[in-house]
Amino acid sequence: MIIDVNKKVMIVGLGLLGGSYAEALKRFGFHISAITKSQSSIDYALEKGLIDEGTTAINPRMIGEADLLIFALYPHVFVEWIRENQKYFKPGALITDVTGVKGSIVYKIQDMLREDVEFIAAHPMAGREVSGVENSTSRIFIGANYIVTPTEKNTPEAIATCKELGLLLGFTNVAELSPEEHDEMIGFLSQLTHCIAVALMTCNDKENMEKFTGDSFRDLTRIARINEYMWSELFMENRDALLDQMDLFLKQFVSLRDMIADGNMEDMQEMMRQSTARRALFDKK
Amino acid sequence: MIIDVNKKVMIVGLGLLGGSYAEALKRFGFHISAITKSQSSIDYALEKGLIDEGTTAINPRMIGEADLLIFALYPHVFVEWIRENQKYFKPGALITDVTGVKGSIVYKIQDMLREDVEFIAAHPMAGREVSGVENSTSRIFIGANYIVTPTEKNTPEAIATCKELGLLLGFTNVAELSPEEHDEMIGFLSQLTHCIAVALMTCNDKENMEKFTGDSFRDLTRIARINEYMWSELFMENRDALLDQMDLFLKQFVSLRDMIADGNMEDMQEMMRQSTARRALFDKK
Repeated sequence: MIIDVNKKVMIVGLGLLGGSYAEALKRFGFHISAITKSQSSIDYALEKGLIDEGTTAINPRMIGEADLLIFALYPHVFVEWIRENQKYFKPGALITDVTGVKGSIVYKIQDMLREDVEFIAAHPMAGREVSGVENSTSRIFIGANYIVTPTEKNTPEAIATCKELGLLLGFTNVAELSPEEHDEMIGFLSQLTHCIAVALMTCNDKENMEKFTGDSFRDLTRIARINEYMWSELFMENRDALLDQMDLFLKQFVSLRDMIADGNMEDMQEMMRQSTARRALFDKK
Repeated sequence: MIIDVNKKVMIVGLGLLGGSYAEALKRFGFHISAITKSQSSIDYALEKGLIDEGTTAINPRMIGEADLLIFALYPHVFVEWIRENQKYFKPGALITDVTGVKGSIVYKIQDMLREDVEFIAAHPMAGREVSGVENSTSRIFIGANYIVTPTEKNTPEAIATCKELGLLLGFTNVAELSPEEHDEMIGFLSQLTHCIAVALMTCNDKENMEKFTGDSFRDLTRIARINEYMWSELFMENRDALLDQMDLFLKQFVSLRDMIADGNMEDMQEMMRQSTARRALFDKK
């Protein structure tokens, strides 16, 4: 194990993910501190033994003692936090995050960061439909992907440490992508699907439809229950990659529409055969 | 109970749904016969005690003895079957079906049908991702909707009998809609969702995406594994209603795309709030 369990970990932003990180890491005996805006989150985490100490104010002593800092904040809050408080970091500290977009964040943070600390970005692809530290559980990491997105500024040691963190947290797959590859992938697999679900959920407000809903409609719209502040920000932070994916989908959907309008059964069936074949790749292994 | 258990039931088309009907009705002691194209389906159903007798050929004696006939065929096969074989029906027989589209079928059948038999249409909204009588089970009716779609030609007795059939089969909700209301509803809730899943599944064929897939993408594309012959036919039989629903979705999706392109956070968040509120209606009760 590269990471020394005597090192001190600080979690900035103690919500669903931050709390789940704390729970997973506490098992190894790490000293864990937390900064978050609500005192009740700190109280809950202390009571459950998820953290050793916590604060709602900027606490230079606590920040300065941390060897590894994990940021679980909204993207724009993250950038501001670093700008204002990096002066308190311990020299040699390692910083990582859970942000769901990378290209628009990673370079910005690395460019402004002090020379004596390193930021290695990661995206833990795990979550729940509920939020808050009270709902945190490291079970969400089982079967999930943890993606490290290094740049040229990162050292091999930091990349290896970040990958080990993913394994310690309990993620099943730990992978490495460039920030750009990550954003394209997430634009397609996660953001486009949320755009589709929201558009589907709001495109027809006829009454009583819910009485006849089957599983396929429920499955397609499960994620239509959405945190509007977080997702609108994630969409804007990944705007170009997301628009590319939306346009690919639009083109294909309009083709299918035209086939139906034209009664073109042959092409319709060919598209469905491709769909069936490609979907088989995506089954849970 | 309106339906006399001494009446004879015939199932035409012994696949997943036909077999599940047979299983559910056999519990009450009905005499059940079946006509289907494959002898192995008949053999399986006889062995499992789902039916009392079966044939792969048109058997005028068997058809002529049936009081209630249930058609579980592809739409165009259904219409042709009636045209060619209605001469064998017992006077006073009641005919129903499981067809997933109604407007393009119900009037056609009723218009060509002998005066002394009645067709009352129904759509059992249940299924599985696998097909064939070997996969049939009446468990698929639990929690599901059964929709009767009468026209002006139907008698109150036939409508009541058809609703009772839905309850005997074990459906949780039995409802009545006009063929047109049904087709709009199914165009939105079922067909549009399948079009979206197919377009999403085929719009980006980049390699290795499956390695990073999470549950939201899997949920949206579960139904992208699709029987191309059945669904292309269902789409064509409901073309106008489906195109209307596709256009409603397209309009909303393009609006969302424009909000993202324009950086219009306010409207984006408002659409997401509507989405969240409307989705709550569709939760399983």
